[in-house]
Amino acid sequence: MDQKIKAGIIGATGYAGQELARLLYTHPQAEVIWYGSRSYVDQPYSKVYGNMKAFADQPCRDDDIAALAEEADVIFTATPQGYLAGVLTEDILSKCKVIDLSADFRLKDVSVYEKWYKLEHKSPQFLEEAVYGLCEVNREQIRGTRLLANPGCFTTCSIESLYPLVKEHAIDPDTIIVDAKSGTSGAGRGAKVQNLFCEVNESIKPYGVTNHRHTPEIEEQLGYAYHAGDKEALSKPGGSPILINFTPHLVPMNRGILATCYAKLEQGVDASWIAEIYQNYYGNEPFIRLLGEGGIPETRWVEGSNFLDIGFVVDERTGRVVVMGALDNMVKGAAGQAVQNMNLMFGLEETEGLLFPPVFP
Amino acid sequence: MDQKIKAGIIGATGYAGQELARLLYTHPQAEVIWYGSRSYVDQPYSKVYGNMKAFADQPCRDDDIAALAEEADVIFTATPQGYLAGVLTEDILSKCKVIDLSADFRLKDVSVYEKWYKLEHKSPQFLEEAVYGLCEVNREQIRGTRLLANPGCFTTCSIESLYPLVKEHAIDPDTIIVDAKSGTSGAGRGAKVQNLFCEVNESIKPYGVTNHRHTPEIEEQLGYAYHAGDKEALSKPGGSPILINFTPHLVPMNRGILATCYAKLEQGVDASWIAEIYQNYYGNEPFIRLLGEGGIPETRWVEGSNFLDIGFVVDERTGRVVVMGALDNMVKGAAGQAVQNMNLMFGLEETEGLLFPPVFP
Amino acid sequence: MDQKIKAGIIGATGYAGQELARLLYTHPQAEVIWYGSRSYVDQPYSKVYGNMKAFADQPCRDDDIAALAEEADVIFTATPQGYLAGVLTEDILSKCKVIDLSADFRLKDVSVYEKWYKLEHKSPQFLEEAVYGLCEVNREQIRGTRLLANPGCFTTCSIESLYPLVKEHAIDPDTIIVDAKSGTSGAGRGAKVQNLFCEVNESIKPYGVTNHRHTPEIEEQLGYAYHAGDKEALSKPGGSPILINFTPHLVPMNRGILATCYAKLEQGVDASWIAEIYQNYYGNEPFIRLLGEGGIPETRWVEGSNFLDIGFVVDERTGRVVVMGALDNMVKGAAGQAVQNMNLMFGLEETEGLLFPPVFP
Amino acid sequence: MDQKIKAGIIGATGYAGQELARLLYTHPQAEVIWYGSRSYVDQPYSKVYGNMKAFADQPCRDDDIAALAEEADVIFTATPQGYLAGVLTEDILSKCKVIDLSADFRLKDVSVYEKWYKLEHKSPQFLEEAVYGLCEVNREQIRGTRLLANPGCFTTCSIESLYPLVKEHAIDPDTIIVDAKSGTSGAGRGAKVQNLFCEVNESIKPYGVTNHRHTPEIEEQLGYAYHAGDKEALSKPGGSPILINFTPHLVPMNRGILATCYAKLEQGVDASWIAEIYQNYYGNEPFIRLLGEGGIPETRWVEGSNFLDIGFVVDERTGRVVVMGALDNMVKGAAGQAVQNMNLMFGLEETEGLLFPPVFP
Repeated sequence: MDQKIKAGIIGATGYAGQELARLLYTHPQAEVIWYGSRSYVDQPYSKVYGNMKAFADQPCRDDDIAALAEEADVIFTATPQGYLAGVLTEDILSKCKVIDLSADFRLKDVSVYEKWYKLEHKSPQFLEEAVYGLCEVNREQIRGTRLLANPGCFTTCSIESLYPLVKEHAIDPDTIIVDAKSGTSGAGRGAKVQNLFCEVNESIKPYGVTNHRHTPEIEEQLGYAYHAGDKEALSKPGGSPILINFTPHLVPMNRGILATCYAKLEQGVDASWIAEIYQNYYGNEPFIRLLGEGGIPETRWVEGSNFLDIGFVVDERTGRVVVMGALDNMVKGAAGQAVQNMNLMFGLEETEGLLFPPVFP
Repeated sequence: MDQKIKAGIIGATGYAGQELARLLYTHPQAEVIWYGSRSYVDQPYSKVYGNMKAFADQPCRDDDIAALAEEADVIFTATPQGYLAGVLTEDILSKCKVIDLSADFRLKDVSVYEKWYKLEHKSPQFLEEAVYGLCEVNREQIRGTRLLANPGCFTTCSIESLYPLVKEHAIDPDTIIVDAKSGTSGAGRGAKVQNLFCEVNESIKPYGVTNHRHTPEIEEQLGYAYHAGDKEALSKPGGSPILINFTPHLVPMNRGILATCYAKLEQGVDASWIAEIYQNYYGNEPFIRLLGEGGIPETRWVEGSNFLDIGFVVDERTGRVVVMGALDNMVKGAAGQAVQNMNLMFGLEETEGLLFPPVFP
Repeated sequence: MDQKIKAGIIGATGYAGQELARLLYTHPQAEVIWYGSRSYVDQPYSKVYGNMKAFADQPCRDDDIAALAEEADVIFTATPQGYLAGVLTEDILSKCKVIDLSADFRLKDVSVYEKWYKLEHKSPQFLEEAVYGLCEVNREQIRGTRLLANPGCFTTCSIESLYPLVKEHAIDPDTIIVDAKSGTSGAGRGAKVQNLFCEVNESIKPYGVTNHRHTPEIEEQLGYAYHAGDKEALSKPGGSPILINFTPHLVPMNRGILATCYAKLEQGVDASWIAEIYQNYYGNEPFIRLLGEGGIPETRWVEGSNFLDIGFVVDERTGRVVVMGALDNMVKGAAGQAVQNMNLMFGLEETEGLLFPPVFP
Repeated sequence: MDQKIKAGIIGATGYAGQELARLLYTHPQAEVIWYGSRSYVDQPYSKVYGNMKAFADQPCRDDDIAALAEEADVIFTATPQGYLAGVLTEDILSKCKVIDLSADFRLKDVSVYEKWYKLEHKSPQFLEEAVYGLCEVNREQIRGTRLLANPGCFTTCSIESLYPLVKEHAIDPDTIIVDAKSGTSGAGRGAKVQNLFCEVNESIKPYGVTNHRHTPEIEEQLGYAYHAGDKEALSKPGGSPILINFTPHLVPMNRGILATCYAKLEQGVDASWIAEIYQNYYGNEPFIRLLGEGGIPETRWVEGSNFLDIGFVVDERTGRVVVMGALDNMVKGAAGQAVQNMNLMFGLEETEGLLFPPVFP
C-alpha cells in the first residue's frame, strides 16, 4: 500500500478512543488525522492524555462526522449509544468506511435494541448491511462491508468462548450462565461518584443483574451459532431463541475481562471432544490462545494485547463444563478488535499492528 | 461474668489468627493469654503485626496446645488442615473448649475429608460431637458444644445465602451454581510467588475450578437443609446428595467475599415469596442484612465487620434466581464468626464485641 | 455522665463526615442526632453509605446549622472551606460547641488565610478564641474552648512529627522539607475525572507543589514551637517565620498519610538525644507510638486507627535527620482527632471511643 | 542489517528479564535465542510468564554464560549482584558484548561497591573498561564498549532529572534531597512475605532510609557532572564528593518511579534559566519529555514506555527548586534502557524498537 489509511476518531477522548489512538500510532499502515471530541475541542490531545505527549500534540477537533468523511478513509466512532444512528447518512458511507464501537448496529432486531437501550433507533435502514465484527466468526462478511458494528467487550469474550460448543451442539443452550468480571476502564471516563477510586478500590460488586445490555447481543449471536446461521429458524416452532443469565461484576483493576461460563454438556460429550472442537475452530487463529482442558485464563496474561485466552474444565460430578475466557476490554474488547476489523476491511494482513505480547506485570 | 474468658490462639501469626487477636482485644469479656506461633516464638507479637503495637507487645509462644489447655478457657486453632486432628485429645477437651478455624471437623464423613483434602484424618472419634458453627443455622447445638468447627469463608457466604431457599424447596438444588470472588487475604500469609503484589494486582483469575475444597462443605450443609436435617435421607433412594458447581476467583483486594449464586426456581416461586422466606429466616438476625429484591451487595459495605449482606434478583426470562451474598472473609468468614461462636458457647450475648459498623472507604 | 452527648454533623455525606458518624456510633458517651447534607436531604443515610445500614437508617437532614444548634451539644462541620466562617454566630456558640474540620479557623492571620485559600474570611471576629486542636500540643487550651479548629490531615502528621525537634532547637528550621504521601480519600467524594479509579490506580503524582494550602498551617505551628509560644517573636527582627517546602503526593490507596521529613541537625545533636526528646514529649501519649531510631512507619500499621507512628534515622554522612510519621488521614487526620478533641472539650477520658487496634490487612 | 542480533538473557525469569524478552520480541533487528534461568530449566518460558504464550514457548535453558557466549552476539545479565562479577572472563567479552542490569560494574571504586553491597568484587579488572550506560549522558562511550553497566531504576530517574542543574552549577549539590517512590515490580519476583499482595496493598512505606544501595551510584554520577567529568577533582582538596539524602518508598502499584528532588538554587538562578538549561540538554532527546516550569510528571503517563518525563517548580519563598522525574522502572529504568544501549552498541538507530506510546489506563 502506497499511502497510509487516514483514520478519524469521533469520541477520541474516551478510554476506547484513546486506545484507538495509541494502537493506530504504531500501526504501520494507518495514521490518525482527526481526534474528535465534544468536550476538549482545540485543546492539545496530549493535554487530555499525557501518555500521548510527543505522539499526538495536535488540538482536538469537534465531532463533525460529515466534515471528517471528506478527509478520512475510515471513521471510528467511540461514542455513546445513539450517536452514530443519529448522524449516519448514505453520503458518509459512500465516502468512507465506518467502524462503530457503540451498540447502534450490533442488534439486527430494532425492537430488541429499543427495549434494552431505551432509545429510539434513528437509522434502522442501515441495520441490514451492517456487519457484526466478531473477526473470528464473521471474517468473510467483514472484508466486504462499509459499516461495521464492533462487538462489545463482554460479548466478544462471552460469545467467542462459547461459540464452538454452541455451534456443535455440545452443550444445552438453555443452561448457559455467564458470570463475567470487568476492569473499571469498561465504565468509561465520565465523572461519576460510583467510579471514584475510593468507591471501586477494595470492593467487588455485581451490576446490571439480569438486565445488562450486552445480554441480547450474546443471545442473538449464540442463537445464530446454534441454528447454523439459519436466522429464520429462530422464529420457527421449536426454533426458540437462546436465553442466558449474564451477570457482570466490577473489579478493582484498570483493564481486563474474565467470563466464567457454565453449561450442561449434551449426552456423550467429553473433555477430549471439547478440546478437539476448540482446536478445529480456533487452532489457527492468531489472536486466540487455547489453554486446553484444565487451562485457567487470567486477565494479567492478556493485558495490553489483542488476545483472547480460553480454557475449560469438565465437571463429571455435575455434568457441566466450565469455560473461561479472558481478554483486555480495551484491546480485543474494543480498540484492538476495531483495528483488526479495519485490517480486514482494507485488505491488509489481519494481524497488522496488533501482534505484540501482553504487558506484565 | 466476673472474670474475662482466657483465650489462646494457636496459629496467631496467620491472617485469621491476627484478626482474632484484634477482635478479642476489643471484646469486653475476653482476653488473649497466648499468641501461639511456629515461626516467631519469643518475638514480640507486635513485631510480626505492627498494627498491634501497644496492644500486644508480649512475645509469641510456641504451638503447645497441651500446655495451653492448662491455662485457657478456650483455644482457637487458626492452623493448617490436619493440625488439630493430629493433636486433639480428650484431655484437652475436658479442660477447655476448642474452636477450630481449619476444616478438620467440618465434614462429618471422614472419607469425604480424606478425598478432598488428601490427608488422613487422625481423630475421627471427635467428628460426631463436633458442631458445625454456622451461627444462624446451628445456634442451639453450638451453645452446648466443647468442640466447634468454624465454617470456611466461602462456605459461610454460599450456604447462608442459599440456605432458606434450599430448605423451603424454592429452588431446584441440582441447578445450583456458585460463582465466588475472594480478596487475597483468603490465600494466607505464606510466601508464595503467586500471591506477590505484582502477580495479584491488576488481574482476576479462577482457581480450584470444579475441585475446590469448600465444595463438599457447601454440598453437605445444603443437603441437610434440603432434607430438613434428616441426614439419613441423603443415603436413601431418591435422597441423592446435592452436587453444585462452585468456582472461586481471586480478586485484587485485601478483604471480602462475594458469592453470586444461580438456581432454577421451582414452579410458582416468585420474588415476593423469596423475600418472605428470607425475612422469616433472617429478619431478626443481628449479623445478616437483607437487601431485598434488586438489592446488590458489595464487599466494600461489609469490610471490617461481621455482617453478611444478601440481595437477590428474579429473572423471569430464564426462570432463575440470582442470589448474591457479601461478607468480610476475615470477620464473618473466619475470626468474627469464631468470636460469635465463642459468645454462644460461653452463654454471652451473641453480639458481644462484634456489633460495629463496617469501615469505609 | 448520665446522658449521651448529642452530636450533629454538617457535611455528613463526605468521607470525613461519614467517618465521624462511624466513630461516634461506637462512642459510649455520644450519639449522632443529625446527619446534615446538602445533596441527599430526606434520603436514608445508609443509602448514601451502605456500610451504615442497620446503624444509621434515618433520613439526612439539611445543613441548617442554626436549627441544629437548638438540639445539639456539639456540632461537627465537615464542610468546604468558607462554609463555617459564613454562617457562624455568637448565638450558635452560646448554645453549643463547634468542632470545625475545615480550615476556616486554623490560621490566626486572616490575610494568610485569604491569600492561600483565595476566599474572603467572613468571621474574623472568632479567630481569636478558636483553638487549634492538635491534642498532644494544645491539650489545655482545647479543654476550655467552645470553637475548635481541627487540624488538617497532612498538618497533623507533619507538625507532630517535627514538633519536638523544632521546639528543642535540635534541627535548623530553615532546612525543613516535608515530602508527604496521601491516600485518595483525602481528595474527597466529589465526582471529578482526576479522582476516578482508572486515573488514580497504578500511578503516583505530586500535586500542589510549593503552593499546597496546608503549608502555612505547618509553618505557623512550627513557628510557635520554635519561638516557644512567643507569638510576637515571629514579627520581631530575627524572629523570622519558618518557611518550609511541603510536597504532597497522591497514592493509589484509600487511606493513610506518610510524611517523610528532612532537616539539618544542629551542632551536637545525635540519635540518642533525638530519641530522648521524643520520649519526653510523647512517651506517655496514648495515640502516638514511637518507633525509635531506625523505626520505619508504614501506613498499613495505622489504618482505621487514631494512631500516629513516628520513627527517625540520623544520617551522619549528610548531617540530616529523616523523620517519618504515619497516620490514617480519616481518623487521626480528621474524624478521630475531632472526637479526641470532643472528649477533651467535654471533660471525658481523652481516649474514650478511640482506643482500638488498627485494621490489617 | 542482514541478520538479526542474537541476544541471550541470563536471569530471564525475573521481572526485568521478562521485560527484556518482551521488548526484544518486537525489536525489528534482534531476537532472543536463550532464556536463561536457574529455577525453571527445561520448562517452557511461557509457562513461567503466561503473557509470552505464542511468543516464547521454548524451554528455559540454564545460566551457563560461557556456553551462551558461543552463540550470542549480546548477553543481557538480569541477575543478582555479584553474579556477573563472579563469572565474567576475557574470553566471554572477546566473543560477545555484555549488558549487565545488575550493579556489578556501575561503581568505579571497588571499595564503595564492597561497602554498600557487602560483597567482595570478583572481577575488578573489568571496572575500568565498563561504561555506565546512561544513554543521554554517556552516549559516545556507550557506542564503543563491549561491557555495559546498565544503570539502576532509581538512579536513572534521579540522575537524569538533576544532571543538567548540577552540571551547570545551578543548584547547591550539598542541599540535594531525593525522595523517590517506586512500584512493586522493583522489588523483584522473589517469594517474600513483605512483597505479598496484602502486605503492599493499601500502604506506603519508606525503606533503605539513608543506606539504600542506589545512593552512591547517584552521588558518583552527579559528582562527575559537577566536576565536569574531571574525575580526579573529586579527590583533590575542595573537590569533595557530593553527598545526598536518598529515600525510596514502596507504592502499591506494579510499575513506575517518581523522584521528587529538592535543592537550593544558586544565586541568580531563576525558572526561565532552568527551563533553558533543560532545553539545551534534553530538548532533542527522543526519550525525555520536558514538561517545563509547573509541569507535573505522573507515573501513569510513562507506564510501559521508555520515557522519562521531567518537570520542575521554583519556590521563591524558600529559594529551592523542586525537580520531578517519572519513568517506568521496568523500561527506561531497566530493560528499555538496556535495549537503548544495545542499539547504541551495535550501531542501530537509538530508538529502534522503543518508540511507542505509554499504555493508559
